[in-house]
Amino acid sequence: MASRLSIEINRQRLHESLAALGEIGRTRGGGVTRLALSDEDKLARDLVRQWMEEAGLSVTIDDFGNMVGRREGTQRGSLPVRLGSHCDTVPNGGRYDGVLGVVGALEVVRALNEHNVQTKHPIEVVNWTNEEGVRFQPAMLGSGAAIGRFSKEYVYSRTDAQGRSFGDELLRIGYVGDARYRPGPCRAYLELHIEQGPVLDTENLPVGVVEGISGIAWCLVKVEGRSGHSGTTPLNLRHDALVAAADIIQRVRRLVLDAPSTALGTVGWIQVKPNAVNVIPAQVTFTVDFRSKSEKELEALVSSLEAHALDVGKRTGCHVTVDRYWLSEPTPFDSNVIGTVARAVAQVGLPVRRLWSGAGHDAKYMQDISPAAMIFVRSYHGLSHCPEEYSSPEDVEAGVKVLLHATLELAEYQ
Amino acid sequence: MASRLSIEINRQRLHESLAALGEIGRTRGGGVTRLALSDEDKLARDLVRQWMEEAGLSVTIDDFGNMVGRREGTQRGSLPVRLGSHCDTVPNGGRYDGVLGVVGALEVVRALNEHNVQTKHPIEVVNWTNEEGVRFQPAMLGSGAAIGRFSKEYVYSRTDAQGRSFGDELLRIGYVGDARYRPGPCRAYLELHIEQGPVLDTENLPVGVVEGISGIAWCLVKVEGRSGHSGTTPLNLRHDALVAAADIIQRVRRLVLDAPSTALGTVGWIQVKPNAVNVIPAQVTFTVDFRSKSEKELEALVSSLEAHALDVGKRTGCHVTVDRYWLSEPTPFDSNVIGTVARAVAQVGLPVRRLWSGAGHDAKYMQDISPAAMIFVRSYHGLSHCPEEYSSPEDVEAGVKVLLHATLELAEYQ
Repeated sequence: MASRLSIEINRQRLHESLAALGEIGRTRGGGVTRLALSDEDKLARDLVRQWMEEAGLSVTIDDFGNMVGRREGTQRGSLPVRLGSHCDTVPNGGRYDGVLGVVGALEVVRALNEHNVQTKHPIEVVNWTNEEGVRFQPAMLGSGAAIGRFSKEYVYSRTDAQGRSFGDELLRIGYVGDARYRPGPCRAYLELHIEQGPVLDTENLPVGVVEGISGIAWCLVKVEGRSGHSGTTPLNLRHDALVAAADIIQRVRRLVLDAPSTALGTVGWIQVKPNAVNVIPAQVTFTVDFRSKSEKELEALVSSLEAHALDVGKRTGCHVTVDRYWLSEPTPFDSNVIGTVARAVAQVGLPVRRLWSGAGHDAKYMQDISPAAMIFVRSYHGLSHCPEEYSSPEDVEAGVKVLLHATLELAEYQ
Repeated sequence: MASRLSIEINRQRLHESLAALGEIGRTRGGGVTRLALSDEDKLARDLVRQWMEEAGLSVTIDDFGNMVGRREGTQRGSLPVRLGSHCDTVPNGGRYDGVLGVVGALEVVRALNEHNVQTKHPIEVVNWTNEEGVRFQPAMLGSGAAIGRFSKEYVYSRTDAQGRSFGDELLRIGYVGDARYRPGPCRAYLELHIEQGPVLDTENLPVGVVEGISGIAWCLVKVEGRSGHSGTTPLNLRHDALVAAADIIQRVRRLVLDAPSTALGTVGWIQVKPNAVNVIPAQVTFTVDFRSKSEKELEALVSSLEAHALDVGKRTGCHVTVDRYWLSEPTPFDSNVIGTVARAVAQVGLPVRRLWSGAGHDAKYMQDISPAAMIFVRSYHGLSHCPEEYSSPEDVEAGVKVLLHATLELAEYQ
């Protein structure tokens, strides 16, 4: 019987599999466009299915197109350890986001096969449908539907910008499976993913242990002032919507700097009307994106924003409203699975850096029904969703090694 | 011989003339679209020429289409007192901006005719070409060309959005005159115009004495930060271009509030890239519009803006540049002509309110070659360049009375 540490992954094979998927939907600038349920997504799915079958996995597909490849364990009827991510991308996205977790899981299975390792519990490799939420909204539609967060009617009726529905497109690419194959509760869910942020890169660390997925609160702030000629309206008669908005934009940063935990706040989108050099802005609308590990903190941030907006409205004579238009609650991962991942990092000989994910992942919905955690691989300069997205072969290998060792522990291989 | 105060203007006739011009280019919402050198401008010119001739004026047209109607004085060879404004409008503009000064000047002449008044110096009524600068840029092209600020080649080669040139369009509407009729130096230039701002309306005054035209400095501020995921980029690793821009936008207001005179500052136009709810703004570009009576103060404001921008750049790690892309120097009017206008306001029995014009007018270029001043008529709610632009018949009458009495003094009627 192979000792845990003698089981090695094949860096070359890993690299070739990533590169093969990177060719499907490759754009001129070296990026990838592989929107969910597109022709490119179908090609990627066909390749993943082929790889699953070649690795001896039994492949099932559920009614949302979620693909599962199963490797049986020695104990009958036991819950699987599930590993996976997604193969869809944003338009002109990168070659690592999503596919790393699918290819990494496949590599774990391939390595176990090569070393004739039998685990007590089954291992599943999953490819979730429509994680990005770019073609069909919202994001993480496949995993959310699998756990019952979204109804089948809702999911099938989602349409893209051209009016084509999820249901029609899933049928068109031939990936309508059966509801009985929806991935249910598991022993543990592990997702290997690129960080998509600069923390590991800045601290010069190849991998990170993800403790949870931040909650997100999106607000739309509308400031209504009064238009006027920039050359003829005295300052004391102005109700300049942009001056008021600038005050609130600055306060958003101040609020998160002063927050007790590591909350984030961003104003990313703004619209000014009428937007002309010599006209006082009459109306400014902008978004605020708050992130936090704590729902209470998110609530406090939005409340502080509302209070400040009200105050700015009074001071400037503008009418200010804050609309909380989207909330995604924070999801802390399972402490046991986090502990397993941390041990695996240490086994691989790397420093254990714990961090939270500010972006959403399918692991969020898996955690809703089963213990889950994630492994992050360093993103070069924190870049993602662009052709420049990059993780080095060494870091990718380190991430897959951590995935392998955490899987061995969770699937109970001595 | 009629005493000055017995000379009355005809409010009904004044109103009808304004209404007649308001029909030319009238839009559905009650506004006016009469762009320079358009078919509508030609119709307005034809009507003004007809009115000039009916009032016994000798009409000349220069090579820029500027129209002059002249009423001779008793002293041979003496310089004229010139009164006027423009008939072009912005798209869907109002029924007072510009035409008030042309119709008001015509009403002065009509009143003098009715009362058989002979002045010592000639009186001219002028209709300037392309004041608005909307169809052909820059603004005040006709008056600027007449005084030699712009060459004929430059003016004729100005093109509109459809690529049609000033020269071709002037020819097309039949208003190419002779260079020898360019309005030259005059005894005094008076322009009656709506305020286009809220000062008189706020203070409940029908008219104002305009002491000069503010200088204008337009700057383009470009803030280059770094893009990033709003959920994954820690605050200390951000270079958020919008947070930096908000700081500068607030400072613009602070700078003008702290300025010694009544300077104005406005950020009216802003562009954010990539402008998405969950992406940290990478680049923000915005305009700053400063106005002041003093060129020194304008210079100080722009310098302070540059210094602050540099400081914000250092603090935020963004690259900030300030480009001064347009400067129009302040133009104080002639103190004697201002005094004459102020006396006329008092004669009419109204309070004398002196103010500066924050908007540009043809009087600016006339002041460059001869003594000038302006009379403002209250704008309802300060509105202009829109269908809601309005000045009451009483205020219009008051403005024309002031114009009449100032003209009588300047043209020397005892």
